[in-house]
Amino acid sequence: MDEQHLNDWFKKRKERRENLSASTLLDGIKKQSISSLSSAITLLESSLEKDQEIAKELIKECIPLSGKSIRIGITGVPGVGKSTFIEIFGKLLAEKGNRIAVLAIDPTSEITGGSILGDKTRMEELSQLDNVFIRPSPAGKSLGGVAQKTRESILLCEAAGFNIILIETVGVGQSSTMVHSMVDFFLLLMLSGAGDELQGIKRGIMEMADSIAITKADGENLNRAKLASQEYKNALHLFPPNENNWISKSYVCSAYNGLNIEKTWEIIESFKNHTITNGWFEKRREEQDKFWFFETLKEMVYTNFFNNIDTKKEIQKYTQLISEKKITSIQAAEEIYNTKLKN
Amino acid sequence: MDEQHLNDWFKKRKERRENLSASTLLDGIKKQSISSLSSAITLLESSLEKDQEIAKELIKECIPLSGKSIRIGITGVPGVGKSTFIEIFGKLLAEKGNRIAVLAIDPTSEITGGSILGDKTRMEELSQLDNVFIRPSPAGKSLGGVAQKTRESILLCEAAGFNIILIETVGVGQSSTMVHSMVDFFLLLMLSGAGDELQGIKRGIMEMADSIAITKADGENLNRAKLASQEYKNALHLFPPNENNWISKSYVCSAYNGLNIEKTWEIIESFKNHTITNGWFEKRREEQDKFWFFETLKEMVYTNFFNNIDTKKEIQKYTQLISEKKITSIQAAEEIYNTKLKN
Repeated sequence: MDEQHLNDWFKKRKERRENLSASTLLDGIKKQSISSLSSAITLLESSLEKDQEIAKELIKECIPLSGKSIRIGITGVPGVGKSTFIEIFGKLLAEKGNRIAVLAIDPTSEITGGSILGDKTRMEELSQLDNVFIRPSPAGKSLGGVAQKTRESILLCEAAGFNIILIETVGVGQSSTMVHSMVDFFLLLMLSGAGDELQGIKRGIMEMADSIAITKADGENLNRAKLASQEYKNALHLFPPNENNWISKSYVCSAYNGLNIEKTWEIIESFKNHTITNGWFEKRREEQDKFWFFETLKEMVYTNFFNNIDTKKEIQKYTQLISEKKITSIQAAEEIYNTKLKN
Repeated sequence: MDEQHLNDWFKKRKERRENLSASTLLDGIKKQSISSLSSAITLLESSLEKDQEIAKELIKECIPLSGKSIRIGITGVPGVGKSTFIEIFGKLLAEKGNRIAVLAIDPTSEITGGSILGDKTRMEELSQLDNVFIRPSPAGKSLGGVAQKTRESILLCEAAGFNIILIETVGVGQSSTMVHSMVDFFLLLMLSGAGDELQGIKRGIMEMADSIAITKADGENLNRAKLASQEYKNALHLFPPNENNWISKSYVCSAYNGLNIEKTWEIIESFKNHTITNGWFEKRREEQDKFWFFETLKEMVYTNFFNNIDTKKEIQKYTQLISEKKITSIQAAEEIYNTKLKN
């Protein structure tokens, strides 16, 4: 590389860096620029300390601009038709003049190397609309870390003027619970019939749903879906009431012929009115903020503790002793604690 | 006090201490002495370091003798008739030649000063049987602490030859979830009708139940209870299947006329056979041991962190900043972590 080339390279690098300064990005976000939003989220996900610092500054500036959206969690097992549902639901919302951001939390992406939204072609029409922003699941070392990035991404999207945030997740493992604790409304997509397709859904998720939509209610499947919906309706009224006095809904829908896609939005709007009126909407968001504060701090505190090599060895040793029934789990914990922390 | 008196006092004190040595208590427990078991649990609950040491030694000796029981969690809202159910259920089991231990976890005991089983008269007949041991909820600073003591009490009861352990808890807050993670079988008691009596039950508990029994199914209430049971049956088959392939049951019962009390035991025995055959029984206990190991260690690690006065002040400060929307919950956590732990 000669000197001229080197100078050019440094100049371009400098320009790039400047473009990624917090203030330039903030300007872009305020102007609702999708490319600025996208760069900001990239910085947020970066592991470079420099990027992290810019992201941190930017988020601080964005907080006062955030919060003015409805955050909707959408979950369901693979095969239930989440992407197809979001494609048609998102288009409907966009046609009404809304700005839609679609984010995803995918606990399987670390294993499969892919992610729920990785294949954007699955939402081809939606992704081409001007007022729609689609972002695949961020990679992360832990589900907790991914969830935190997603929560901060929500704030950035809101600051960029997106008034509807859809957060997609698969209904398995811990990810649904996590998404539930960062959204205002939680929609569970289900298939008709309670057979194999239920396999893998985490028990307890059904009781978290603000509404259940039976998907693929078209053609020969329509009657089966209606029957399933009625069964869920019966089940839902047996559940303990929601703290917010909302009665969870159950209905059928079809992304194929558009059945009840509009109804989904009506239910969400009615939920929003209901919970804003009884003060629960704001209260819940405050509780979620506090929950995440403690959750994040706890995760940091014990990651710091558990990542120590000595501790890892001790844990291995004591796990073995527990298996051999030489010590109780509580005694094992006490012994590790006494060696490692008390001193 | 003259010298003779003083000598007597020291002698008696020495005797008492000796009686409470680990080896004496262990002998008593091996002989299935209820008073030794009771003293052992008292030591376990004591906050004196000396008592704790004896308890620790004793539990180590008891582990190899433990595990040979079925651990049954029983939950339901106040008013559902838990004590009455346990009274008649326990008597039935005792008549069959079993040795029954009844323990309780009551998250409200700290507030009310009482505890679920505090009033032993509510189980008057049961408590007078020779092969029955009833122990009220231990007091404790945290629900986690109480749960740990209860888990160790289970081991002591098993070592003392109790082959059926009933753990009672109210179906509110976190206590049901905790009990669920220390038992083999989880029974939810419900009242007929899905009205006010559901208020307070934690959402998600229903999906944890291995069976649901509708109580007070007698007299005019019988038909209503049967209807409710059928509704729950319909709901249960909509839930995702249990990992262990057990199909949760729903039925009516009455402590007043004994209806289906026997059936409860048949269901539990069938559950035990089913899960022992498919290997899930042992697997679940191992998972529970590991769960409690990490749970206890985590609690110790962050109690150690959060109990620092400086940290408490910082947390207060940052909670305020979060409320004022000056910082995100994640940034707040990072700042506290960086100040307190990284250095």
